[in-house]
Amino acid sequence: MSAEAVSNALLAPAFAQVQEEVDSAFDAFLTVPTDSRKRLIDAMRYAVIGGGKRVRPLLLVSVAKLHGVDRSAAINAACAVEAIHAYSLIHDDLPCMDDDELRHGKPTVHKAFDEATAVLAGDSLHALAFDILSRSATSPDPFVRSELISTLAKASGHEGMAAGQVMDMAADDEHYDLHAVTRLQQLKTGALLAASVEMGAILGKVPPEGRAHLRAYARDIGLAFQIADDLLDVEGDEAKAGKALRKDEEQGKATFVTLMGVDKARAQARMLVEQAAGHLASYGKDAQLLNELARFIVERDR
Amino acid sequence: MSAEAVSNALLAPAFAQVQEEVDSAFDAFLTVPTDSRKRLIDAMRYAVIGGGKRVRPLLLVSVAKLHGVDRSAAINAACAVEAIHAYSLIHDDLPCMDDDELRHGKPTVHKAFDEATAVLAGDSLHALAFDILSRSATSPDPFVRSELISTLAKASGHEGMAAGQVMDMAADDEHYDLHAVTRLQQLKTGALLAASVEMGAILGKVPPEGRAHLRAYARDIGLAFQIADDLLDVEGDEAKAGKALRKDEEQGKATFVTLMGVDKARAQARMLVEQAAGHLASYGKDAQLLNELARFIVERDR
Repeated sequence: MSAEAVSNALLAPAFAQVQEEVDSAFDAFLTVPTDSRKRLIDAMRYAVIGGGKRVRPLLLVSVAKLHGVDRSAAINAACAVEAIHAYSLIHDDLPCMDDDELRHGKPTVHKAFDEATAVLAGDSLHALAFDILSRSATSPDPFVRSELISTLAKASGHEGMAAGQVMDMAADDEHYDLHAVTRLQQLKTGALLAASVEMGAILGKVPPEGRAHLRAYARDIGLAFQIADDLLDVEGDEAKAGKALRKDEEQGKATFVTLMGVDKARAQARMLVEQAAGHLASYGKDAQLLNELARFIVERDR
Repeated sequence: MSAEAVSNALLAPAFAQVQEEVDSAFDAFLTVPTDSRKRLIDAMRYAVIGGGKRVRPLLLVSVAKLHGVDRSAAINAACAVEAIHAYSLIHDDLPCMDDDELRHGKPTVHKAFDEATAVLAGDSLHALAFDILSRSATSPDPFVRSELISTLAKASGHEGMAAGQVMDMAADDEHYDLHAVTRLQQLKTGALLAASVEMGAILGKVPPEGRAHLRAYARDIGLAFQIADDLLDVEGDEAKAGKALRKDEEQGKATFVTLMGVDKARAQARMLVEQAAGHLASYGKDAQLLNELARFIVERDR
């Protein structure tokens, strides 16, 4: 997404800045070798530089900013979350998974390179995420680093994102109801969005008992994000979305939209955004960016 | 490998013990849910419980023991290394990679389950490794945890194991010489073996400048391990090895054996083992297990 696609006066420059910072950080993390490892690094760079909305990074740095965290430390942690997100998309797009050919408006990694390189580029971005979080540049405090790592590992593994993907794959056979779809999406999409918020708070040394309102915000926007995704799948423009749409319907999959209908789903997403904003009331005007971000998540066209 | 296959009086019980401890730890890490996530956890358990030689865990706990590390902490760290090793085998065996049907004498994960589940089980074991290392049960000292994570992430990612795998995939086109094959194997196999040794030292709070002899030992056994693998591919018994052999020759791949010949390769591996033992001279008799392990690595039949 180009920054221009975001019309909001507060969000547009914030997205543009975080996009530039994340790209620049990945450029530094991934120097291109001249030997046969070049193909791997090229594939990793292809996946993480210049693509993606950077919703998770903006979430993380915005929460971190509320708590006075050093910007470059927050960008490091944001890169870790984005590396996990990117690896999951590479693996999700593989022929044996969703078999997608288009992502962020360009060929998926296994199309642009090959399947084996895509598997390894995903694996390498996965490892890079934890490498970045273990660096003192991410936090001089090893306890903070360890907590960041624990949060991201749990959010992405078999108790988080990967569990959601397995539940999603089983969706055809399981005939999920609204409760099951909610649970699935909390894992598949919600866990990493929640981790982004949590990691901002961890960097800001907010104690666990002081994170309840941030967790409630994250839970609401996570669900709203997925409802918006389901709406996009039905109503979106493939050219803008930069990926194949109408897949849920083709597959006869239970989604928020098939279970609730378009109108109810949209109303629910908007209600969740208002509810999310309510959780951040104690921050007053400082939470404006996070509230706008919540609204953007629901109203986006990709 | 059953413990009985190791005849050495010192090694056999050490292998048996670490195999049991690692299995039991994974059993506790991976409780089986009753919902649709069950298939994922089943695949993860299939890959990490009851299979594999556990060379890396035994290396790690043996080095840790030299430095007075608590046994259960060392087993946790050993499980993290083994989880990385196991995920790399699952992904390596995929049809788009090496396309193998047999591993540890049983069907590979994508054969026993399906490809998508294999990708996700690998990814989930990858995340589990860092989850385990971030726990206070692995070390109460967050600096130690962070250093363990840094070491394992670097050893497994684009500067370690994954880079070696990409170089290996390019081998057909690149016509590697002995120098290039050595470099490739130092990354593909050596990096994770070296990390196992290093992590034992990190748990034992051996300062980086005091790890030179351990690193030299690790480098030598890493190379010896791969030469032995190449010898096994030529001379081994598939039933004992529990996997397909004669693959290097079929693919016309440059290996230590094709480049040096069987006799020279074996002599080189044995020389490396003696050299490895020399690096541990300062430990005296305490290093006996590590020396036997080095010998086993070269003489093993799987």
